[in-house]
Amino acid sequence: MTSPAHSTFLRRIEFSDTDAAGVAHFTRLLAFVEEAEHAFFRSRGVEPFDGVSGWPRVAMETRFLAPCKFGDTLEISLAEWTVEGSRLQFSFSAEIAGRDSKVECFRGVMRVCHVRIDAGGAFQPMEVPEEIRSALLGQGD
Amino acid sequence: MTSPAHSTFLRRIEFSDTDAAGVAHFTRLLAFVEEAEHAFFRSRGVEPFDGVSGWPRVAMETRFLAPCKFGDTLEISLAEWTVEGSRLQFSFSAEIAGRDSKVECFRGVMRVCHVRIDAGGAFQPMEVPEEIRSALLGQGD
Amino acid sequence: MTSPAHSTFLRRIEFSDTDAAGVAHFTRLLAFVEEAEHAFFRSRGVEPFDGVSGWPRVAMETRFLAPCKFGDTLEISLAEWTVEGSRLQFSFSAEIAGRDSKVECFRGVMRVCHVRIDAGGAFQPMEVPEEIRSALLGQGD
Amino acid sequence: MTSPAHSTFLRRIEFSDTDAAGVAHFTRLLAFVEEAEHAFFRSRGVEPFDGVSGWPRVAMETRFLAPCKFGDTLEISLAEWTVEGSRLQFSFSAEIAGRDSKVECFRGVMRVCHVRIDAGGAFQPMEVPEEIRSALLGQGD
Repeated sequence: MTSPAHSTFLRRIEFSDTDAAGVAHFTRLLAFVEEAEHAFFRSRGVEPFDGVSGWPRVAMETRFLAPCKFGDTLEISLAEWTVEGSRLQFSFSAEIAGRDSKVECFRGVMRVCHVRIDAGGAFQPMEVPEEIRSALLGQGD
Repeated sequence: MTSPAHSTFLRRIEFSDTDAAGVAHFTRLLAFVEEAEHAFFRSRGVEPFDGVSGWPRVAMETRFLAPCKFGDTLEISLAEWTVEGSRLQFSFSAEIAGRDSKVECFRGVMRVCHVRIDAGGAFQPMEVPEEIRSALLGQGD
Repeated sequence: MTSPAHSTFLRRIEFSDTDAAGVAHFTRLLAFVEEAEHAFFRSRGVEPFDGVSGWPRVAMETRFLAPCKFGDTLEISLAEWTVEGSRLQFSFSAEIAGRDSKVECFRGVMRVCHVRIDAGGAFQPMEVPEEIRSALLGQGD
Repeated sequence: MTSPAHSTFLRRIEFSDTDAAGVAHFTRLLAFVEEAEHAFFRSRGVEPFDGVSGWPRVAMETRFLAPCKFGDTLEISLAEWTVEGSRLQFSFSAEIAGRDSKVECFRGVMRVCHVRIDAGGAFQPMEVPEEIRSALLGQGD
């Protein structure tokens, strides 16, 4: 079942996020998705990374729809959260904030995995604990 | 038709590519795909970016299969190039070089678009010129 | 003469800012100084970069005093602004926000240059215009 | 006493290293200095980072002399290595490779510190071990 949880995150395009084509580099846009994810985690009282557990990426799909430039602010929306075993999935979309008409920059789906990081640094997938599942997705989702 | 063109690119994981989970950050892995793409372009005599035309990303799909660490060298393979109108697509996969048994780190598909960058910095999609198409994919592909 | 202008800028350490030693990578800290500089410019009505003029770095000195980690928020202070010809200089310091006792992370001096970017992309140093000088440093500084 | 050790490192400017002014972002140039340092360490049989010890930055001074662009290859030279207690210092300079006349892009001095990373992730300065000192600087330096 998909959670009704929905969050938005604002992120300005900084100079070090841009490239010589004059726009935000696509890899920085994907880093912003992770920033939005972490902001959502914190808003639900869940620590995104504590050194002994974390959420490495498992898969992603992205469509890049329009470029964004230095100084633009992106409004990144996360939604459609689902949990299955150790996997957490959500959809993301980003539009340029403050425009009269909507300009969608990119959208996609991210799948991450809950892992324990062992003493040697290896990642061991672990089922998403119930308290994290309910914090992120809501009771009864 | 898919081109028989196939290329490999070696890239060491540098310290600034890593994150606090002790592995290469996923966004850096995706930047390496672009580096491999540019190396392939140059090997075929095609300039990847010249200020007035370029190849922004349109879509990508990636599966992250195993982490890689500081000091590892990735062997990134590009294949299955296709051109359609202004769009160029290829598949990529990366394994850790120098291991006794194969460790595949990530794989996926990237779709980019050939654009002219106009005086105001806007991107205008342009059909991939025949000389670039044949340089990248081979005559008659 | 040194301007009394003083500004502060808050920046969270995001996951892509960290490295495998578990702390913010030093190059990201220096990018945050530029972000703070741009925020100060905007607060004074000055556009930091518009495609035809900009402020490339000329020189910097930095001392790194204490590490900062994922999730920490840095409070970056800029002060001691001076202008001479095309050169603009300021000092910066950063401490971890929200700590009971002050933890200074880094401090230094940055010198940048006002340039016109010509059609070929070359940088031509230009004296800082009076309206920018007074906007940034205050009237009569 | 200063070591006669001298090393060079070649690094291409990749697209994700550039910014909207059309040149390599200054923070990426500084990351390349670290890459050159690590290449020198490896050439002397010294592991730059192993999870339990590392070399965080302590101080740096840099002068940026000329911009470099996407596709340029930098030749980064490291020299003037000195060790004192836990501190290791070297000078760096970078020029654009393959040019008829020398174009120096940046130069500076970097000071790093040898640390043990304890179980909680804190950095404990440790005197540079004699075997590392002699590997990096040469016997009797």
